[in-house]
Amino acid sequence: MSESLRVGLAGLGTVGASVARALAAKADELTAQCGRPIELTAVCARNRDQDRGVDLSQAQWFDDPVALAKSNQIDVFVELIGGEDGVALDGVTTALEAGRHVVTANKALLAKHGVGLAERAEKAGVILNFEAAVAGGIPIIKTMRESLSGNAVSRVYGIMNGTANYILTRMERDGISFANCLADAQRLGYAEADPTFDIEGHDTAHKLAILTSLAFGTQIAADDIYMEGISNIALGDIEAARELGYRIKLLGVAQRTPEGIEQRVHPTMVPLGSVIAQVEGVTNAVAVEADIVGTLLMSGPGAGGDATASAVIGDLADIAKSQPGRQQAPALGRPADRLQPYKRARMRAHEGGYFVRMTVHDRPGVFADIARHMADQGISLESIVQHGAAPHPVPMGPDNPYGEDEETPSPKTVILTTHETTERAVRDAIAQIVEDGHLISRPQVIRIERAG
Amino acid sequence: MSESLRVGLAGLGTVGASVARALAAKADELTAQCGRPIELTAVCARNRDQDRGVDLSQAQWFDDPVALAKSNQIDVFVELIGGEDGVALDGVTTALEAGRHVVTANKALLAKHGVGLAERAEKAGVILNFEAAVAGGIPIIKTMRESLSGNAVSRVYGIMNGTANYILTRMERDGISFANCLADAQRLGYAEADPTFDIEGHDTAHKLAILTSLAFGTQIAADDIYMEGISNIALGDIEAARELGYRIKLLGVAQRTPEGIEQRVHPTMVPLGSVIAQVEGVTNAVAVEADIVGTLLMSGPGAGGDATASAVIGDLADIAKSQPGRQQAPALGRPADRLQPYKRARMRAHEGGYFVRMTVHDRPGVFADIARHMADQGISLESIVQHGAAPHPVPMGPDNPYGEDEETPSPKTVILTTHETTERAVRDAIAQIVEDGHLISRPQVIRIERAG
Repeated sequence: MSESLRVGLAGLGTVGASVARALAAKADELTAQCGRPIELTAVCARNRDQDRGVDLSQAQWFDDPVALAKSNQIDVFVELIGGEDGVALDGVTTALEAGRHVVTANKALLAKHGVGLAERAEKAGVILNFEAAVAGGIPIIKTMRESLSGNAVSRVYGIMNGTANYILTRMERDGISFANCLADAQRLGYAEADPTFDIEGHDTAHKLAILTSLAFGTQIAADDIYMEGISNIALGDIEAARELGYRIKLLGVAQRTPEGIEQRVHPTMVPLGSVIAQVEGVTNAVAVEADIVGTLLMSGPGAGGDATASAVIGDLADIAKSQPGRQQAPALGRPADRLQPYKRARMRAHEGGYFVRMTVHDRPGVFADIARHMADQGISLESIVQHGAAPHPVPMGPDNPYGEDEETPSPKTVILTTHETTERAVRDAIAQIVEDGHLISRPQVIRIERAG
Repeated sequence: MSESLRVGLAGLGTVGASVARALAAKADELTAQCGRPIELTAVCARNRDQDRGVDLSQAQWFDDPVALAKSNQIDVFVELIGGEDGVALDGVTTALEAGRHVVTANKALLAKHGVGLAERAEKAGVILNFEAAVAGGIPIIKTMRESLSGNAVSRVYGIMNGTANYILTRMERDGISFANCLADAQRLGYAEADPTFDIEGHDTAHKLAILTSLAFGTQIAADDIYMEGISNIALGDIEAARELGYRIKLLGVAQRTPEGIEQRVHPTMVPLGSVIAQVEGVTNAVAVEADIVGTLLMSGPGAGGDATASAVIGDLADIAKSQPGRQQAPALGRPADRLQPYKRARMRAHEGGYFVRMTVHDRPGVFADIARHMADQGISLESIVQHGAAPHPVPMGPDNPYGEDEETPSPKTVILTTHETTERAVRDAIAQIVEDGHLISRPQVIRIERAG
């Protein structure tokens, strides 16, 4: 029997406790698969007394993650603390400098410091694994880093936030407003008390930034992501999408264009018959388009203690199977100093179809004006329909002796979809329509994405 | 710069030529990703003069794959010859014994000799990779072998034959019979002149046998697979499936049960809203259910030169990144001598829902007899409907002076679906129904599978 791989686990929250339980429950199986045992020798957490469903009495306890990171009782430092800086960063940095392998589920940390950490890992000749940081149990990091070697990726996109997808799924399925779905999600533990991070796209953006680097061999550029959340998606959008043959998903998309790389997170209409449209509730999915393989799509649980723990265990098994003391494959797929600078494609240059929903005054010529402004920008319309609100019934009384319906104009909804065009053209056309004074409220614009 | 990984490629058909082209076109990229070049140093193919879209003048030519396999000019032997025995087996065996790594796309070879070859690779301390053997470009082997370490798999199932899926997709979409779809598929190059291997399930069975071993840590048992093809699927089945909320797919399913392991390949009804139901045409998909991760699903191109080449390149990149001369991770996920004997669960013990379509004489009591036989076997019906054929119009004439429709009984179709029951119960009930003499032709039985 070879020597154990000695694991130091920092953070015993939901995921950490799942990892500890799995390492205990699957010890024999992992030993058979890896050729040597994976042993939890040290842990670090605030509360020593909490029952985590696993006997941790054999593990050495640390109060300070950084002390654990440099302990010579461990070969791997598993960082499940969270946070883009602070002790998570200190712990990981210390571990790499001390020649320990690192496994982390921390997307915020990697989005901010990933390239620097990859560089440190290379210098130390150790492995930095982070399968759990993107899309939970889905092995998208390994797929992009290893299986797609040699492939030139053209686009990667996915549903990478379970909270947002849960809300969109329930809005459609149960016809409940965004606010009510969010409240439900909070009650069920699918959304945080402050849900901003999930529903406004920040969490998706962190994950996307990591995938972008793996996809295109570029430096991580997490601050350079166009971002729109789902909080202003109305039931009317979801219904209109369905009528038009689409479903609304919060997608993160990274795409190579002649201008540079687009990184964007926004509500997106995907075809109802596409695989990704069927991905419901807290499930995640990621699709990759590449020149040799074509299109791959993976779906699975994007969060939750066990699913995330599965990714951590997979990362540990890879380290256990690796040959100690030798140069390891680079964390971001290429050596850190070979990563290209990130060149942003401006959002106004984005090309695609668009859905636009406008609430307009019901006056003659509105339709014509809208169509003309679109045409002036060279936009070709796929469909344009007007949903008339029913006339407001006005009660009989001195002002309405005959009980007639109101004859003053009532608001109408105009919904249009475009063929492939540019963001610039759509924004300019809408600015013109706004200037005409026909709109009662801010128009809703949702991008349409090709998806398989 | 480290030393090149020297590749010897046996077989320059569609996939082999794609591999050679990709290695040439992606040389720099692969070197950056792997830390050393991957170099095609030797090839073996019948025809030296054929234009394969790549300059092979720098590669040494071999006429005999076995000679290539033992050449000391290569580090890896890539077997793309095909066939479960013969030169493919000789080449791979020779290469492993000579201490060369092996990459193969040959599912038939692995289904028959996989355990023995894995054992040889372990003894020699070399890598045996075969990502391309199952589901083409989808990285299901790596996922099961590496990402799901520690997971206990309960079920793995998938669409693993593009020809069969293409035919079923076109039957539904265009309302064309099986025979006409097959003819089209042959014309388009999606089906062989002798399509038996694809449409009767043999190809899926080979792939399933490999996945079963990886899923359950058992020896490969390719001869012990229940198999039904799609050649007797009628348009009526497809239409009835749709009405009931299902779509018919040819699935390979391996499942752990209290009785042992079920391995089965058959037409299967999956829910219309499931992700796998959306997998169309020549696309493949594989789903894995496991205790830690939950359910993962992957879809992508299951065949074709480039998609398959992508998997071969990924396998080569893994070898290039590995440390030479050290013990490598076992090919089937566990050391070959730790693989458990395969224990078969008999098909009659299979539990699931069933769809049954029967063409019956239209006589009083048929419905009641059918329902009674089902009830006698403890089968709970989910639905039962009778589709009456329109009455045959009979021309006016001496026998039909008033132009009335025929009054003699015409055949009727009875379609039923069951709740969860056993194969044994369904077979026994149908035997009873047949005995009653109500059936005009052989009943159609299609299993219903839970699917996400």
